[in-house]
Amino acid sequence: MKPANILVVGTGAVGSFYGGKLSVAGANVSALVRSDYEYLKENGIKIKSINGDFVFKPDEVVQKVDNYSKTPDYIIVSTKVIPGINVEEIIRPKVGKNTAIVLIQNGIDIEEPVAKAFPENEIISCLAFIGVSKTGPGQINHQEYGRIVIGKYPKGKSEKVEKLQEMFNASDVPCIIDENIVTARWKKLIWNAPFNPVSVIGGGVTTDVIINNSESLKLVKNIMNEVIDLANIYGHNLPKNLVDENIALTVKMKPYKTSMLLDYENNRRLEVEAILGNAVRLARKKNFPVPNLEAIYALLLLLTENNR
Amino acid sequence: MKPANILVVGTGAVGSFYGGKLSVAGANVSALVRSDYEYLKENGIKIKSINGDFVFKPDEVVQKVDNYSKTPDYIIVSTKVIPGINVEEIIRPKVGKNTAIVLIQNGIDIEEPVAKAFPENEIISCLAFIGVSKTGPGQINHQEYGRIVIGKYPKGKSEKVEKLQEMFNASDVPCIIDENIVTARWKKLIWNAPFNPVSVIGGGVTTDVIINNSESLKLVKNIMNEVIDLANIYGHNLPKNLVDENIALTVKMKPYKTSMLLDYENNRRLEVEAILGNAVRLARKKNFPVPNLEAIYALLLLLTENNR
Repeated sequence: MKPANILVVGTGAVGSFYGGKLSVAGANVSALVRSDYEYLKENGIKIKSINGDFVFKPDEVVQKVDNYSKTPDYIIVSTKVIPGINVEEIIRPKVGKNTAIVLIQNGIDIEEPVAKAFPENEIISCLAFIGVSKTGPGQINHQEYGRIVIGKYPKGKSEKVEKLQEMFNASDVPCIIDENIVTARWKKLIWNAPFNPVSVIGGGVTTDVIINNSESLKLVKNIMNEVIDLANIYGHNLPKNLVDENIALTVKMKPYKTSMLLDYENNRRLEVEAILGNAVRLARKKNFPVPNLEAIYALLLLLTENNR
Repeated sequence: MKPANILVVGTGAVGSFYGGKLSVAGANVSALVRSDYEYLKENGIKIKSINGDFVFKPDEVVQKVDNYSKTPDYIIVSTKVIPGINVEEIIRPKVGKNTAIVLIQNGIDIEEPVAKAFPENEIISCLAFIGVSKTGPGQINHQEYGRIVIGKYPKGKSEKVEKLQEMFNASDVPCIIDENIVTARWKKLIWNAPFNPVSVIGGGVTTDVIINNSESLKLVKNIMNEVIDLANIYGHNLPKNLVDENIALTVKMKPYKTSMLLDYENNRRLEVEAILGNAVRLARKKNFPVPNLEAIYALLLLLTENNR
């Protein structure tokens, strides 16, 4: 099998980890970087991992996408979904006829702008279940989990999806294909929509604090119910017992700082729109009431727009 | 007219201001103090006021209510409504047959515990519209407004209410009797319920910031509507245009830090229950949905219980 040419856009923790894994397993993985260019060109990215440390040495390290020498089979987009990062503009020069655009990003409804900008290209949507963080220039720390769920957007699978799965599995990254990847995103949102914002708005609290207070537990459940109801309005058919399942799962977890809280504490921009704004807008499109989602969305906007 | 004997319980900014005014106008006003006892006994309380500075020299300054020598005609309670302050216990030794208990406090449904504890006594409920703060031991700064609305609880007026009004007016404190004082509390809550918590939860923002963001303005209006609907369930008959009136009023105000935000910034306990908890409980009693009130109540509990 000819090794795939992969360009990773966004060498934060997630992009570096998965790109690095694919590289170690034999793919030609290059990296578009914004900061730390010289350092990464020289040293690559060191990944401290619970499954064994490794170094991601990109084939090419480029500061502008035009400088990449090939036409990629896959462009892996693992940037944050925040205002100011225009993924379509960044990748356009290297999106070839057969380039699949792989989105490893948080939130819901994040595929649409990319799908609209590249209607002829295959979009592969991915959910990363991983605890990983950047600890310094070219330094990544992988602490928990790691599996990835991938699927063709808006649904189904494809040769390219299956090849990507193969490559991930060859890299010791557990990878599952979900032919209803959009539904899978909603399922993940059931947890993310309450816990991420509440952990921040509630004053920097871990998951155990949130579920041990009966009022905030109620709030979390209300938000989860709204997400499920809204998803079902959009045809996803999610069962209501996902609320209890998600709570039970969280009870079993050790006290956990959400990724949004880590971003907040590190003065990084929060993915407010991908996690909450898109859901609120989808609700409004159908005139569906989501008062709890709207309330935390408004509060999170106040917090992020006035405290930076 | 024989001067009234008044005991002020809680010499924070509000109690010191109104007690001081009544004292200057000729009433026998004494003060129960927790901190700054020696200082207040010696120097009284200095009030810097937009209407002219003055000093409140209490007739008696006592640390325990038992040490007060008289049976008061009025006990003015101007403590915060927060857990740990048991007003009934504090005042019980000096509540005589003819003692009226005057509550100058925030929130709704705050009269009930006192009325239950002293079923034979007259309760006078008061709303202070004032911008006043304590700046140091025995130092009060009166910056804005000052009028007070008073009424017999649960409704009507009385000789004692009228005499109190007379005394306030003689002290240059504009005082209006509202025979539906409970309704007046709900009216005040329309503003307090959204702006106080959102200013804190939103990251320490002034009123202008809240109303200039379309999402938080919507949240504020949603909360106001819930308060009005809930008040009406309890028979208060508040018109819906109070939402727009309150917003228009806030637009005209200069950027304003709510009293709850000032408390938060000064590490003082917040009146979470008086402002939100009581409303939420009244809603639950009638199975009336108040999702926005519940959401901010839960978030405010998280913030206050985990960040002190």
